[in-house]
Amino acid sequence: MDAEEFRRAGHEVVDWIADYRSRLESLPVLAQVEPGWVRERLPAELPEEPEPFDAVLADVDRVVVPATTHWQHPSFFAYFPANASLPSVLGDLVSTGLGVQGMLWATSPACTELEQVLMDQLVAAMGLPESFLGGGVIQDTASSAALVALVAALQRASGGKWRAAGVDGSETIYVSSQTHSSLAKAARIAGLGEEAVRAVPTGDDLAMSADALEAAIAADVAAGRRPVLVCATVGTTGTGAVDPVRAIGEVCARRGVWLHVDAAWAGAAAVCPEHRGMLDGLELADSYCANAHKWLLTAFDASLFWTSRPGGLVDALTILPEYLRNPATESGAVVDYRDWQVPLGRRFRALKLWAALRTHGLSGVRAHLRGHVELARKLEGWVEADPRWEVVTPRTLSLLVIAVRGDEAATRRAVESVNAGGEAYLTHAVVGGRYVARVAVGAIGTQERHVRALWEALRAAV
Amino acid sequence: MDAEEFRRAGHEVVDWIADYRSRLESLPVLAQVEPGWVRERLPAELPEEPEPFDAVLADVDRVVVPATTHWQHPSFFAYFPANASLPSVLGDLVSTGLGVQGMLWATSPACTELEQVLMDQLVAAMGLPESFLGGGVIQDTASSAALVALVAALQRASGGKWRAAGVDGSETIYVSSQTHSSLAKAARIAGLGEEAVRAVPTGDDLAMSADALEAAIAADVAAGRRPVLVCATVGTTGTGAVDPVRAIGEVCARRGVWLHVDAAWAGAAAVCPEHRGMLDGLELADSYCANAHKWLLTAFDASLFWTSRPGGLVDALTILPEYLRNPATESGAVVDYRDWQVPLGRRFRALKLWAALRTHGLSGVRAHLRGHVELARKLEGWVEADPRWEVVTPRTLSLLVIAVRGDEAATRRAVESVNAGGEAYLTHAVVGGRYVARVAVGAIGTQERHVRALWEALRAAV
Repeated sequence: MDAEEFRRAGHEVVDWIADYRSRLESLPVLAQVEPGWVRERLPAELPEEPEPFDAVLADVDRVVVPATTHWQHPSFFAYFPANASLPSVLGDLVSTGLGVQGMLWATSPACTELEQVLMDQLVAAMGLPESFLGGGVIQDTASSAALVALVAALQRASGGKWRAAGVDGSETIYVSSQTHSSLAKAARIAGLGEEAVRAVPTGDDLAMSADALEAAIAADVAAGRRPVLVCATVGTTGTGAVDPVRAIGEVCARRGVWLHVDAAWAGAAAVCPEHRGMLDGLELADSYCANAHKWLLTAFDASLFWTSRPGGLVDALTILPEYLRNPATESGAVVDYRDWQVPLGRRFRALKLWAALRTHGLSGVRAHLRGHVELARKLEGWVEADPRWEVVTPRTLSLLVIAVRGDEAATRRAVESVNAGGEAYLTHAVVGGRYVARVAVGAIGTQERHVRALWEALRAAV
Repeated sequence: MDAEEFRRAGHEVVDWIADYRSRLESLPVLAQVEPGWVRERLPAELPEEPEPFDAVLADVDRVVVPATTHWQHPSFFAYFPANASLPSVLGDLVSTGLGVQGMLWATSPACTELEQVLMDQLVAAMGLPESFLGGGVIQDTASSAALVALVAALQRASGGKWRAAGVDGSETIYVSSQTHSSLAKAARIAGLGEEAVRAVPTGDDLAMSADALEAAIAADVAAGRRPVLVCATVGTTGTGAVDPVRAIGEVCARRGVWLHVDAAWAGAAAVCPEHRGMLDGLELADSYCANAHKWLLTAFDASLFWTSRPGGLVDALTILPEYLRNPATESGAVVDYRDWQVPLGRRFRALKLWAALRTHGLSGVRAHLRGHVELARKLEGWVEADPRWEVVTPRTLSLLVIAVRGDEAATRRAVESVNAGGEAYLTHAVVGGRYVARVAVGAIGTQERHVRALWEALRAAV
């Protein structure tokens, strides 16, 4: 494909995306196909001769779109949102077009420095602790962020011996029953095993109890185990519960344990000053994560990760084989982000974040976030006004957890019926053993009529 | 940004990329800026009010391009190539535009099934073992591929206890001095520590000795250690050395040790039947990795990973929290790729691979690979004809390692001078303690005149 053919086909793809985004509402949100549907429609072999790009795009229409769950659909209320704003799509296109690989500063200075600048700008824009300045990096996901936090914590807790000697079997980490499964997965990958993961009790609010954490750590220390990391969550996946960061951070500081704060979803809200209270105490955290690819208008993947101990992170992950030696690295004057992450190579992810933040402006980002919070608040009002339904846990930002009163089967029926119809898509949680519906408002195009339609569909299905 | 504004700005970005790719030759390959150059040119704060997308694109020209090392430049001979072919750029654009997140089959069936189909098609197209059918997945990088291979190996070697109990300190893995640093990094992250990594001796050809491997394993077993994984490399980063996969695989089979084969760069060449000999014995491998984002025309990131033990991989990595439960997963009829990788979320990477492979056709992919091999062969001839220079290790495919005879300082001077001038970019290796130049031919636009110019510049700099 030469430059002229790329222009033609590229304009076509841009127009295809514009059309796709415009007609999203006409598509079922949840893909309505059976397993194997896609495979049956594709040839067994790759073509021997070149095919035109148009043939690929035609197959996207024929095979991909009908078998796609449309995360950008305005009636997507499942999991958490995955904002792929159109400016971020273009920022990512610039990145792919440049085709650079930013493992080292030298392999593209702009890739490293723009990311550093943006992460520092976001410290200010989100009111984050100044201890995070110079400690920001974009990871792919919050799962990887948790894993790098854990290895940095292991290296620190071992007095620097972990890197050579590995884990010794006494290391212990602390989460709650509501913490994301990525922490248990990180503990596995890091060789601790799930038996090293303590689920600290929560209160009725499903938030981790700092007193229970203190007691768990004390018991482990008495038993000869080594507390390494605590993960506090601001906005849990199930219900949006908020762990008390300050109280947990004080326990961690007393005990010398690494505090990782996971605000993968809710963290975006810190762009609005009125929502920063949930992060009170964040200056006690050693690391912090908020996903730009959830609610911050940036196409997946872009997980914002900050640490107040970047030297410790690099100490855990750095390796410098001969073939990566270069004058800039040896000068000590630059950051090589390969030492801040699991993979060696890295995309120029800052471009999509930069495009999203600048084209919306901070005022636009706030309007985006506040609009969704307001829609969830409206839904909360409608649910409270309906005697058959109830709000199960207090609303957090734009996440509302609801259920049919005293009829778990009806809640399940409502969720499954709405999803099967394709008119909206929502997922569930289990609270106190009870199946409940989660409504995560946050798709870019979601307006009051979409939330209203969801609510009417749920009521009608009971 | 509404759909119409996206059309306008999108066409502009497509044209910008077409222009950028067309004028690459006029740009210095290696960024010619000092540390801090980018940061100095950016504002300290994010804008409060929205800016037009054009302002972002103007800043890409003003700040990003001058501080970028141009991996797509036809005179890029450093590291390994990073082919971001234009069709793959468009495939990736479709992916970002769709904005789906394929963690589960249900969260986009097409994202999962197209990937499965492509990975099976590539088994046939590359002549890979049939044991890999149904065992393919796209990882971000070879580093992550090595890590997931290692955790699957750990779970297997522990008889299924690793997941809960973690590592016990006896686990040992085997590499050579030439193996990529990602294996040592994976060992660290997995909690084994670098002391658990044995560098098996190599012969003069820098390939791992299977006899030495056998001896190392025997000594470790006698000392009570537990061999878990061997990594054989086909095409090492330093010099392109090829470990004897069959002989190593026979040792692994006898000892019940997981064999991971890393062909991150050279693996692409298996599309050409004449280059498949280096993979002889691959049917003995438990896992295998070849990066589509190096020499297979697919924009970063897309590391092709196959395992003949997908059940073992899933056994190591699966976790099913309540909020991810869904009917398709519970039916057992689908693959959820989140259980095949470190992160939970995942991009629709198959689209860029699909676009690259179909628009080139297998015949086009072969022509791409063979052209670069032929260029490296020509360079080899020129070097051999020059009494001042020598070919240091046998050429592997399109990678040539050369040096000034008996004058290490001159080799270094030549490399540094060419890079500083910006006319081409190459990196170095150390072979037997000696600094040597690596010429990795493989950028999409590289033609004979670019290789010739590199050679003339190197000679002129001595």
